[in-house]
Amino acid sequence: MSTIKYEVRPGAYYDSVVLMQLQRSLAGLAGVVDAGVVMATAANRELLAASDLLPDKIEAKADDLLIVVKAEDETAAGEALAQVDSLLQRRRSAAAMAFRPRSLEAALKMAPDAGWVLISVPGRYAAGVAREVLDRGRHVFLYSDNVALADELSLKQEAHRKGLLVMGPDCGTAIINGVGMGFANRVRRGNIGLVGASGTGLQAITSHIHSLGGGVSQAIGTGGRDLKAEIGAISARQALDLLSRDPQTKVIVLVSKPPSPEVATRLLAVAQAADKQVVVNFLGYPVAARRLDNLHFATNLSEAAELAVDIGDWRLSAVSSAIDEIADFQSPIAGNGSQRYLRGLFSGGTLAYAALLGLQVILTPIYTNVPIREEQRLPDLLVSRGHTILDMGEDHFTQGRLHPMLDNDLRLRRLRQEAADPEVRLILLDVVLGEGAHPDPASELAPAIAEARKGRPDLEVVAIIVGTDEDPQDLNGQLERLIAAGATVFPGVGEAVDYVSRGLSQPAASAFPRVPLNAFHEPLAAVNVGLESFYDSLKAQGAEAVQVDWRPPAGGNEKLMAILAKMKARDT
Amino acid sequence: MSTIKYEVRPGAYYDSVVLMQLQRSLAGLAGVVDAGVVMATAANRELLAASDLLPDKIEAKADDLLIVVKAEDETAAGEALAQVDSLLQRRRSAAAMAFRPRSLEAALKMAPDAGWVLISVPGRYAAGVAREVLDRGRHVFLYSDNVALADELSLKQEAHRKGLLVMGPDCGTAIINGVGMGFANRVRRGNIGLVGASGTGLQAITSHIHSLGGGVSQAIGTGGRDLKAEIGAISARQALDLLSRDPQTKVIVLVSKPPSPEVATRLLAVAQAADKQVVVNFLGYPVAARRLDNLHFATNLSEAAELAVDIGDWRLSAVSSAIDEIADFQSPIAGNGSQRYLRGLFSGGTLAYAALLGLQVILTPIYTNVPIREEQRLPDLLVSRGHTILDMGEDHFTQGRLHPMLDNDLRLRRLRQEAADPEVRLILLDVVLGEGAHPDPASELAPAIAEARKGRPDLEVVAIIVGTDEDPQDLNGQLERLIAAGATVFPGVGEAVDYVSRGLSQPAASAFPRVPLNAFHEPLAAVNVGLESFYDSLKAQGAEAVQVDWRPPAGGNEKLMAILAKMKARDT
Repeated sequence: MSTIKYEVRPGAYYDSVVLMQLQRSLAGLAGVVDAGVVMATAANRELLAASDLLPDKIEAKADDLLIVVKAEDETAAGEALAQVDSLLQRRRSAAAMAFRPRSLEAALKMAPDAGWVLISVPGRYAAGVAREVLDRGRHVFLYSDNVALADELSLKQEAHRKGLLVMGPDCGTAIINGVGMGFANRVRRGNIGLVGASGTGLQAITSHIHSLGGGVSQAIGTGGRDLKAEIGAISARQALDLLSRDPQTKVIVLVSKPPSPEVATRLLAVAQAADKQVVVNFLGYPVAARRLDNLHFATNLSEAAELAVDIGDWRLSAVSSAIDEIADFQSPIAGNGSQRYLRGLFSGGTLAYAALLGLQVILTPIYTNVPIREEQRLPDLLVSRGHTILDMGEDHFTQGRLHPMLDNDLRLRRLRQEAADPEVRLILLDVVLGEGAHPDPASELAPAIAEARKGRPDLEVVAIIVGTDEDPQDLNGQLERLIAAGATVFPGVGEAVDYVSRGLSQPAASAFPRVPLNAFHEPLAAVNVGLESFYDSLKAQGAEAVQVDWRPPAGGNEKLMAILAKMKARDT
Repeated sequence: MSTIKYEVRPGAYYDSVVLMQLQRSLAGLAGVVDAGVVMATAANRELLAASDLLPDKIEAKADDLLIVVKAEDETAAGEALAQVDSLLQRRRSAAAMAFRPRSLEAALKMAPDAGWVLISVPGRYAAGVAREVLDRGRHVFLYSDNVALADELSLKQEAHRKGLLVMGPDCGTAIINGVGMGFANRVRRGNIGLVGASGTGLQAITSHIHSLGGGVSQAIGTGGRDLKAEIGAISARQALDLLSRDPQTKVIVLVSKPPSPEVATRLLAVAQAADKQVVVNFLGYPVAARRLDNLHFATNLSEAAELAVDIGDWRLSAVSSAIDEIADFQSPIAGNGSQRYLRGLFSGGTLAYAALLGLQVILTPIYTNVPIREEQRLPDLLVSRGHTILDMGEDHFTQGRLHPMLDNDLRLRRLRQEAADPEVRLILLDVVLGEGAHPDPASELAPAIAEARKGRPDLEVVAIIVGTDEDPQDLNGQLERLIAAGATVFPGVGEAVDYVSRGLSQPAASAFPRVPLNAFHEPLAAVNVGLESFYDSLKAQGAEAVQVDWRPPAGGNEKLMAILAKMKARDT
């Protein structure tokens, strides 16, 4: 029969390393079977219960420390609890052996060249520390989780205004100028720069790059929420911009759990403007092509690494020649001047859907009658707006009427309507041949295309033709008539989408200073506030580092903290 | 100044080809500028208005025929309208030139070997015709749209019970034994069999296969709603089963717009059991890997064609050897006997997410604390159920506690808990090395793994190790200890998911007769009810075909139709 004894220590701050070590020390004492040392939150109580370590009646608040010992008998349990203070003391004196500054200010006096501050204090204190770091003009690596979304936004906005970078909150991994921050694998230096809103994603890709013989220039973390609509990928966009200017980076990898669709489109526009090849791996995000312009889409982490190494290596002639070939080409709808919209008039539902799937990645706003996301729904099917993709074989257009694969009447009328809209620069059509379909679609479409382009030399018509050389319509004859009418013809949706996407994005001018490259090219110097193991790791990698002996302000008393913060604000 | 005149013809049925031809004939008359001939639905009125063809005050019901003529003057408009009857008459007498049976029964007497009936009558009549076809033991190609979902379900259930196939409703394309039905490109015969819930998707892939030098055994359409949860992919599953038994089919292609997730998993289980290589292209469905067992995932239509040709060709040694190698291997959780569940205990959030992304495709039910879809959420995080993937670095598990990359305490407790569950056959762990992480995770994990497997020789532990040969933990040493403890170790999520997925599915026994292969291997004979151009196309392809001179029962009067149907049911 074992027995359980416990002790509650109200309030006060304990580092989680201290708690883990206390638990291990207690569990290792003679006669002790198991031990638990946790903050008494509801979740932790449940976890204690699952290990059969939760005493029956217990009174403790969420911020109380709960120390539980399960021992062979009452005596052993009591003796174990009696040692708690000396065990905590032993830990403290070890830490006290080295001189440690107690404030960020003091630490930065010791290491004035430190361009980086790592923060891993509990979430409720982290935003305050990060704010002070930005005030002092340093970049932030913010490991702490449980930071409010509003704090993340204001920190990142502030950093953006100052040309500083906030990696995180909840940023697990970064490699800056060869030095890992947080959790990071030791990898070869090389020409692959990474941006990751996913911690172990960055680790898996960088490790795999290393195992393939490739190397990493910089790996920049952003924290898991950076690509949510509320934050708008502020850090990821800064990081992409930075890597695009970094002479050591030849290929960029962008990895994230699925971003919000609007953010994805904006971020990919920045990536497209990067003037470098970019491997994109949005985990679980539907991909419509392997490549769009300079963007290469990977389906998983391993493939992202493999693609990056292949492109960075430049030995894969297939990739490099394909990239060279398109270097100077620009999409007909590229450009920042007047509105340049695309209008797709499809007879094939799946072709319309596949085109939307590819184009929604790079074109915004885009509307349709076959929406993938509800906000894409075109309110009035008779009037296009922005970029529009219409499936004209859909019910609305075919009531008591032949399918547009048999009867082009409505499509021809709509073609004329779109061509009369000066905001339209490109009309996209499909021409589907084969048994059962219109016996000669080009005889109707080609004159209409020629007519539409007569008064509009700037209007491009792109046709996707689906057919074989054995189809009854004579594939080559159809092709020739469409080309003679001035259409640009492709054999599939993928090729047409690729054509439309090339060189679509130009870098946007920013009102804010860009993040300077020097902090990424100078020997790394950093201040660490929080988990000591991160400090140890910086030192082990040869970086200059200072550890702050951090304690929560006002001993963790939140009311007092607020008053202190106000007084401080008044001082400055 | 042009003028508009119109005529309303209440009720009665008109074939859409007739309407199109009447409109063209009217538009071609002297003095006529434009013409519109449509059923007077709201959508069609809007379309007329867009072409400036909608008269101001007009009284017509949705099933009235509306004939509008815009002419240079009153006289021309009046003369055009006066010709409507003779124009309609001209069309009729041409059709009457050939002898045409007026009923399905009569048609099948003329062509008793016809195994197929094509139906393209208006949607409200289509289910009735299809029901009669099934009663007469023939397969259905149902081109008509606007068929009620409940009718689709009952038709497909009835067909399934009888070993018959219903392709559609809204099925645009099929190629059966070399003959295209509906819209179909003429392509080479070959060893690639296709199942498509997407019409132009099938056309694009089969055309591309042909252009690459490959060929098609059968292309079976299912209609766009077959993969919705309500229908449960009845036709697609029958088609997959059929192609898996077809000796002429070597590789199968499955194409669809995104299916409902539950249906996708069930359908992929059937595909996995097919004992053939299957190329899957669910447009816009997130893909987690290029390949899982015998399933090859394509990101778009072109790639689906390219993959199928490569695999069918068998010349690509890389593909064939990879396939040979795994032929006889079976996943530890394969088998139909007792429950065989997987439990994943991850320290890395992205690794957990990536594993879920891959495994959700093939494992069901699957639960997690990082759900991709809400129904995957594990209600009680302390108790796993079914297949479970836990991100143990997520907030619930880390309140005031070190991350599991630093402290394995909770993971080790959970490992013991899962190993004690007799329904668990496989425990999946990640081991993340590198700077900042636990200095020697194997020292804690390996003994726990060995301990867990001691009393459970059937329990497999799979570890994903993320690290490099330069990491401070000594990658090889970690590997050796994990393997010595009995773990199966992989360098990435993809490899582990692939291992878990191999040979997972066995063909399920069906209570219903399977679709016999003969209708796919005998020279094609079919009856066509509806669009005459489909009949013409069958004949042009050398198939035996009979056209039914179909008219709606009771002249299209719905009340009378219902009475007739009841009387007929009483007769049998």
